[in-house]
Amino acid sequence: MAKVTFLPSFKTAEVSDGSTIFQAAITAGVLIESTCSGRGTCGKCKVQIPREQMDSFAHSEGAEKFLSDTELAAGWVLACQYKVNSDVTVVLREERDAHERKTALNRVHADEIRPSIKKYPLTLTKPSVHDQTPDWERVRSALPNRNISFNLLTAANLAKVLRQAEFKITAVLDGESIVAVEQGNTVERCYGLAVDIGTTTVVVYLLDLNRGAVLASSSVTNPQRLFGADVISRISYAAKGSIELKQLQTAVIKGLNDTVSKLCANTGVSGNEIYQAVVVGNTTMSHLFVGIDPTYLAPAPYIPVFRQAIQVEARELGLNILGTGKVIVLPNVAGYVGADTVAVMLATKIDQLPGITLAIDIGTNGEMILAGKQRILTCSTAAGPAFEGAEIRCGMRAAEGAIEGVTIKDDVQLAVIGNTLPSGICGSGLIDAIAEMARSGVVSLTGRLAGTSDQLKELPPSVRRRLRRTDQGSEFVLAWGEATATGEDIVLTQKDVRELQLAKGAIRAGIHVLMGEMGITPEDIDRILLAGAFGNYIKKESALQIGLLPPVPAERVRSVGNAAGDGAKLALLSTHERMRSSALADQAEHVELSTRSDFQEQFVKALSYLR
Amino acid sequence: MAKVTFLPSFKTAEVSDGSTIFQAAITAGVLIESTCSGRGTCGKCKVQIPREQMDSFAHSEGAEKFLSDTELAAGWVLACQYKVNSDVTVVLREERDAHERKTALNRVHADEIRPSIKKYPLTLTKPSVHDQTPDWERVRSALPNRNISFNLLTAANLAKVLRQAEFKITAVLDGESIVAVEQGNTVERCYGLAVDIGTTTVVVYLLDLNRGAVLASSSVTNPQRLFGADVISRISYAAKGSIELKQLQTAVIKGLNDTVSKLCANTGVSGNEIYQAVVVGNTTMSHLFVGIDPTYLAPAPYIPVFRQAIQVEARELGLNILGTGKVIVLPNVAGYVGADTVAVMLATKIDQLPGITLAIDIGTNGEMILAGKQRILTCSTAAGPAFEGAEIRCGMRAAEGAIEGVTIKDDVQLAVIGNTLPSGICGSGLIDAIAEMARSGVVSLTGRLAGTSDQLKELPPSVRRRLRRTDQGSEFVLAWGEATATGEDIVLTQKDVRELQLAKGAIRAGIHVLMGEMGITPEDIDRILLAGAFGNYIKKESALQIGLLPPVPAERVRSVGNAAGDGAKLALLSTHERMRSSALADQAEHVELSTRSDFQEQFVKALSYLR
Repeated sequence: MAKVTFLPSFKTAEVSDGSTIFQAAITAGVLIESTCSGRGTCGKCKVQIPREQMDSFAHSEGAEKFLSDTELAAGWVLACQYKVNSDVTVVLREERDAHERKTALNRVHADEIRPSIKKYPLTLTKPSVHDQTPDWERVRSALPNRNISFNLLTAANLAKVLRQAEFKITAVLDGESIVAVEQGNTVERCYGLAVDIGTTTVVVYLLDLNRGAVLASSSVTNPQRLFGADVISRISYAAKGSIELKQLQTAVIKGLNDTVSKLCANTGVSGNEIYQAVVVGNTTMSHLFVGIDPTYLAPAPYIPVFRQAIQVEARELGLNILGTGKVIVLPNVAGYVGADTVAVMLATKIDQLPGITLAIDIGTNGEMILAGKQRILTCSTAAGPAFEGAEIRCGMRAAEGAIEGVTIKDDVQLAVIGNTLPSGICGSGLIDAIAEMARSGVVSLTGRLAGTSDQLKELPPSVRRRLRRTDQGSEFVLAWGEATATGEDIVLTQKDVRELQLAKGAIRAGIHVLMGEMGITPEDIDRILLAGAFGNYIKKESALQIGLLPPVPAERVRSVGNAAGDGAKLALLSTHERMRSSALADQAEHVELSTRSDFQEQFVKALSYLR
Repeated sequence: MAKVTFLPSFKTAEVSDGSTIFQAAITAGVLIESTCSGRGTCGKCKVQIPREQMDSFAHSEGAEKFLSDTELAAGWVLACQYKVNSDVTVVLREERDAHERKTALNRVHADEIRPSIKKYPLTLTKPSVHDQTPDWERVRSALPNRNISFNLLTAANLAKVLRQAEFKITAVLDGESIVAVEQGNTVERCYGLAVDIGTTTVVVYLLDLNRGAVLASSSVTNPQRLFGADVISRISYAAKGSIELKQLQTAVIKGLNDTVSKLCANTGVSGNEIYQAVVVGNTTMSHLFVGIDPTYLAPAPYIPVFRQAIQVEARELGLNILGTGKVIVLPNVAGYVGADTVAVMLATKIDQLPGITLAIDIGTNGEMILAGKQRILTCSTAAGPAFEGAEIRCGMRAAEGAIEGVTIKDDVQLAVIGNTLPSGICGSGLIDAIAEMARSGVVSLTGRLAGTSDQLKELPPSVRRRLRRTDQGSEFVLAWGEATATGEDIVLTQKDVRELQLAKGAIRAGIHVLMGEMGITPEDIDRILLAGAFGNYIKKESALQIGLLPPVPAERVRSVGNAAGDGAKLALLSTHERMRSSALADQAEHVELSTRSDFQEQFVKALSYLR
């Protein structure tokens, strides 16, 4: 075991030899910035180690690029790369640490941290025959707001709590509801969850509500995958009956509970100290999460049961935070524009940005938001599973071993997540590959893989020999079997190219309809925000190259990370922001593409060309 | 089997031979007035049978006295006495029937029937791609009040309900909450429960909320008796831990559920058509019913956890009415003045009566209410178990075979419930017996059984020989073994007399303290209302004779029946009355007798004398 001491807080962790500083920080409850969860690809977890304590150590090739020579000389390392073998002192970047403590997100200012959860330490007068005030009234009358509503579960053992604590307690309020009465003064410990339920991946953030800081986060595959990979197959399953609906609900709750116990174990927070959870997800995920039959979301006219925000006590859902704590599902806009899209609006403050903003969240579905001229327009379209790696011969999720970047010059050069041998290609890699293939002439602008000798002779020889015909049609070898994890060639087929064209055609046509609705052209767009994990990794030049995005100067395109998760965090940290989410959902005008002939026309146009 | 047809409604019932008309009426869902539940002692269930259909039939002796010769000649019978042996037509007293349909209680006027449950039959427009309004919003926007709150359970299967009903539905609202969405138009069927949870007996009334009528009622021994006969022993049991508390809660809920299924089976009402329950009981019963630890109600200073009214969904308690239906527990005043006492205030409209009113509800505990001069004063005192037949040698509950009336002239004459051989004596019989014994000189005014020859020779010989000494002291034989159900003598002992003196002394002293607090004397009391089953049967002259009540003219004393149950029915039938119950509980000033030296003084005085 080795002891790791973090400065300036002097927090410590005992970890087993070979653990990374990143892991030690989680154990110690110290915040280290990271967006790649310790994969060594974001370069944000820089910490400093005194030279005399530093073991001999080499960064991985990919990681070293994030550190300048000066930094390397001064003992800066990436926390996720440096493995501890003896006691060590670690200095955090002070400005970043201070910043992290003040705000959970770049977008939240400290003075915006006004969660609806508030703790009140109280010293109550003890009862006597001359003051027979009931226990609950005794608590309530000591609170600033006398309208606090009664809660049966909190009251159930209140008599004993008050007397064991000798009437010194902390009342935990959520707005005008009491959620707990705790013995002694516990104001220092106050936590909440922000949850983003994706069809594929569920991300959970544990936040310190006093400081507005993310203590820890974790993501897990949505266990509903067992019942179907996409929302339509899950709706079909749920439509069979209430038992199947319950299975889907139970699956995602269990996934969340497993994640919450892990986060609690890592941070020393107890489930009963988590007083609220804010949840976002697409409309189907929201329905399934609260156990509402989503059957009629699938067939036209795609009718959800509810659109508004939902509040329910955690125990009703079986979510293992404080049983009386509220779980708040943010509002939806329409059947295929869900709370996750509303959360993107919230996180980007899209309604407050000057000019015209287009925000796109691409997953299995693509949701588009066009804001400007005092309006917020939304639409959604099946993006096709291409962007999540499905339906692509060698497709895979954006995990270790996925090709995420492709350059074609004299030959093909690959960037692989985790800097290992490639196993397949993920969505951002696919866009990059096809953009490069189009630029270099491996595919034509209509999306046809080069076949004639005329076309082929323009290509460098080592690229040319990657093109080949098989029984199933043409394909292009991205990586030869000798340099892949499986030993098999990694290829893109003609069919793969067509899948991507379908996906990008739908997105592009949807954007076109929204622009028409608002009466603008691409030049009027001041910025394009790419949300979601996918948007985070996509190379914007490639997205513009293949025509996924309307033609704007590349500098107007920006990734905004997991904006849906950020929106959930905001709503958790600020009652005001939570109210704003309902206002945004109400304000949003949904454009149903299936009724629009202009969508069909544009789709046909947009899918035909790679530009 | 015989068919019984009721006029004027032409409702029918098939019953087995030998069933009474009273039983047939319950099967047919026909309302027949009765306050003795078919025991033949209230005389209220008169119905008429055409002479030609009448079988040879003789009323029991006690029952015949309720019918005049003219009535007997015209074929009037008591429905609970007449046994059916062939098909028969029964004519109900029309004015009473009409009255019963309008009002559940003598005290409720038809225009006061404004339950918080309202049904709205709705025909919704069907959704289309041009109108993608979510299902729930579609329902809500068709309702007169748009602020109706969302309910997760109602929403869970809403999508299918709407489509199976082709968007013709009935929304069931409780105030601003939706509790159900039903297929088709169901406004005709709308039911509620009024429940009076006594320490000993639980009474359940099933009401038709459209008509304000009691459809059926039933009472059952409180199953919590298994865990202790009185509130203190149950509190001790609950104090052991949350499992024991849960056992007590589960016991009473199970008793209620059994009763509800019986009432439903008898009336053809489904549990899901019961949309609300209003519950009253003493403060301990209220705590146990909702699962709140009552531990600190037992020791001084007798602190309850809550005082205010409580609302909770039925499913949370496991009560088998509609799961989303609200269970409303009326407010308490103090640790030993509960919702049942508030219900008595409500039923008697004690705050609106002119002058000064004293209301007394006597059971194991005695609760007193003194209203007047714009004030409502309450107090409670352990009445001793004497009034419920416990701690009395031959005591028993007011059931068949209990002596309920005693007259002493040349000899002792008894009135026995059910006109059978006596098995013991109940509370009202005890008061009657001791009043008569005091009047006739069998006991002295200080409560001593006659012993000296001087005293004895005043008595008629057949009374005198009932007095005897045993090893345990003196006793008086009320019924000789040859004329009792058990073959054993039924006696009152010197100790029994002392028990009664203790009980009546506490009640009387409590009344004295309230009068002192209000600054009045007995002459100022305009009326004394005796509530509860006990108050219903007590002979007021006897209660005055033994000094249980302050000295007022007998015509000022009146029984008001099960006023606690009536109050629960009122609160169920009228939102206004329910609100009033909270106002009454707030207005009531509780006088804690244990702190009052004047109570101790008066208790000593009052217990010493039978007057």
